[in-house]
Amino acid sequence: MGKMIDELHDSASKGQLDLVLMIIESSKQKSVINAQNDQGWTALMFAARNGRVNVADALIKKGCDVDLMTKSGQTAVDIAQFWNHSSIVTLITSDSNNSNIPCQLSTVVTYFGKNPLDRCSAMRDNQEWIEKELHQASTKYILFHKLNPFVLYQDNKYEICPISYKDISFLLMGDPKPVYIFLGLGCLDLSNTNGERNAWFALDVSTLEEERVLKFSKKAEILSSKNKYAIMGFDEIQAGVIAQCKSLLTWHLRYKFCPTCGSVTNIAEAGYKRICANKDCISLQGIHNTSYPRLDPVVIMLVISPDKQQCLLGRQKTFPPGLFSCLAGFMEPGETIEDAVRREVMEESGIKVDKVQYHTCQPWPMPMQLMIGCLAYATSNYIKVDQNELEAARWFPKKEIMDILTGHGLNSGAAFSLPPKQAIAYQLIKTFVGTSSNL
Amino acid sequence: MGKMIDELHDSASKGQLDLVLMIIESSKQKSVINAQNDQGWTALMFAARNGRVNVADALIKKGCDVDLMTKSGQTAVDIAQFWNHSSIVTLITSDSNNSNIPCQLSTVVTYFGKNPLDRCSAMRDNQEWIEKELHQASTKYILFHKLNPFVLYQDNKYEICPISYKDISFLLMGDPKPVYIFLGLGCLDLSNTNGERNAWFALDVSTLEEERVLKFSKKAEILSSKNKYAIMGFDEIQAGVIAQCKSLLTWHLRYKFCPTCGSVTNIAEAGYKRICANKDCISLQGIHNTSYPRLDPVVIMLVISPDKQQCLLGRQKTFPPGLFSCLAGFMEPGETIEDAVRREVMEESGIKVDKVQYHTCQPWPMPMQLMIGCLAYATSNYIKVDQNELEAARWFPKKEIMDILTGHGLNSGAAFSLPPKQAIAYQLIKTFVGTSSNL
Repeated sequence: MGKMIDELHDSASKGQLDLVLMIIESSKQKSVINAQNDQGWTALMFAARNGRVNVADALIKKGCDVDLMTKSGQTAVDIAQFWNHSSIVTLITSDSNNSNIPCQLSTVVTYFGKNPLDRCSAMRDNQEWIEKELHQASTKYILFHKLNPFVLYQDNKYEICPISYKDISFLLMGDPKPVYIFLGLGCLDLSNTNGERNAWFALDVSTLEEERVLKFSKKAEILSSKNKYAIMGFDEIQAGVIAQCKSLLTWHLRYKFCPTCGSVTNIAEAGYKRICANKDCISLQGIHNTSYPRLDPVVIMLVISPDKQQCLLGRQKTFPPGLFSCLAGFMEPGETIEDAVRREVMEESGIKVDKVQYHTCQPWPMPMQLMIGCLAYATSNYIKVDQNELEAARWFPKKEIMDILTGHGLNSGAAFSLPPKQAIAYQLIKTFVGTSSNL
Repeated sequence: MGKMIDELHDSASKGQLDLVLMIIESSKQKSVINAQNDQGWTALMFAARNGRVNVADALIKKGCDVDLMTKSGQTAVDIAQFWNHSSIVTLITSDSNNSNIPCQLSTVVTYFGKNPLDRCSAMRDNQEWIEKELHQASTKYILFHKLNPFVLYQDNKYEICPISYKDISFLLMGDPKPVYIFLGLGCLDLSNTNGERNAWFALDVSTLEEERVLKFSKKAEILSSKNKYAIMGFDEIQAGVIAQCKSLLTWHLRYKFCPTCGSVTNIAEAGYKRICANKDCISLQGIHNTSYPRLDPVVIMLVISPDKQQCLLGRQKTFPPGLFSCLAGFMEPGETIEDAVRREVMEESGIKVDKVQYHTCQPWPMPMQLMIGCLAYATSNYIKVDQNELEAARWFPKKEIMDILTGHGLNSGAAFSLPPKQAIAYQLIKTFVGTSSNL
């Protein structure tokens, strides 16, 4: 096996397509196409390193994994980019139909960013349809007690504990009615791969005692909010739905009154609208955002030094000891994403940023943010920390970041740590190390 | 002159760097470097067309204008991209320090997207400093009467009519105090090019009669909100500040009460915060978004057909006759930008979108949106219009769009029109035509 992999990698390097295909097809092990050598390199990476477009194309068509990383954290795209084989970058990052896409598309899916449900937003104001779905035997409810989800803990992760209508019907028939939110149609079961679609609702059961909630399932628990990281312990298939629930339920908790006139509001559109009960309120004339869920755009950016060899990370006083992360801040009305990045970086660190590049985004349900992740290119080096915003900020050489990401930093007793994989900051930092490291 | 330009273009095409430099240096007219032929082509474009990296590099270093367009709307970058000269794309879109930027950065600045003021957000809670600035002789106030700015109309455009403290001091000393917002430090005068920085405030003068407001300046008027497009008639240097003012003043008008408990709120932090007056309100414990300005993220996208030759435009019933534009929709909590694009396109038109690419963004003060502009790559063709959302939607061939953008469509009696240049939709449409048109 080892020898065959060496031959595969060698022929991929040399662009010997026939040999590459022969080795893959003759191998009994499907995984040979993705086999990595001691440094973590795959056949695709060798093709990318040497500009072998024909081999890269064939490997991709054969379904090789384009996301694998070398031991120093580079993907095949990073390697192709570094060695300036742009046609291979294009091959990997887009299908052949998309050759007009002017730039590389990020394929990163962030935690909380994947949501398998079809929101069917057009159905929300169809109360008859919603009522029918509320009562279906196949419909599943996700319970929340004081914003904390009712969950199972197994295989080292949290999982939604779906509850059926019959178990919660007494609540929906009660008065006052509990807050429920139509989440969408789809399949959220981690084990159910045949893709049965059913309706999903979030249900606020805060009026019940905790003991009563626990009776819905012997194996389940109410996820404590004491552990801030627990919410990041879901499988990513479910995390996006948890984000959707938490943001909307918090909105209902914090926005019970009409901001325009101070009157109480009533829920409508299956949990996506609150209508002022005061008939004379101007919020009832026309469409106003006072009636709709709030979503706060936040910029979060990795600032890259003028020599491209370092990135700027900072720490807030409330961070766990040693943790450094990307700078971030709320956007303001009348501001572009790019200007918000420049303003926040200047305010918090005194560093001047010129070019800003959108990278990826992430819904962040603490409580209702949209994190807009960017790379920011600095034109100055001297850091002046705003002590009200940050406890510290400094430039981190690429090597130092790499050591932490690859685990060597921990062994060497590194004095700092990076955010967890679930944070978009981690993705931004990884991109920085990947895109331009010395291969 | 004409012959010299022909020679310049010819030598740029052929990569004859010495000749190019000689022509530029020997010319008495500085503009020769940017001279355009009958089709609007410049020396840089000819270098870009023929992959002459040395010439392109020299022209850029000599300060040529990289944003000029051919008569069919392509820039030098578009041309380099089309002919696959990626090193020239890189040269033009980034300075030499930024060669590691993995993709082309949009240099588009949208209307409302440029704001020359330094917001100095850290100073907002320094009431002593704010009070001092309020009273400075150099401080300028932008008056708003029922959300409409007090403006001058000259040279076919609107201009802020700046008012001094002494003229409005009676208002600031009155009781109740009017709403004011600290906008930032900077220079907004279109004529003042020596860059004197002074403080700018927005001031709500709605308590005064219109007649009284008009007395502040004989030449100025209150911009009527009856003409929806009037707000787009400012020079772009001032448009961003107008957006900042309108969004914040509307927020103060619509968010007078605490959404959490229904009590009145009081303005703080120079117009960027509203604090609940009820001492028992939980909004006073910790930081909650109920106290801060709202900003609604909206996705707006140009959908490109699977064959890349057409784009999808739709029209809402409220649009002026014949106007077609990009699809758009509000983002929801727990959703990424990319998924919001896919959902809105599917809901409104039945078209399936695969890849989504962020392009540029725009603050949109009607009343407080952040328009996030994207290109969306369709994988299906069959349109099914949601009649609740749109009156019509169809594919527009690139040629048809080009004719309208270059003015031929109007002459030929085209039955439709595109959004104005101030709309981000226009920028997205222009990008589509520019990036991959047949050169």
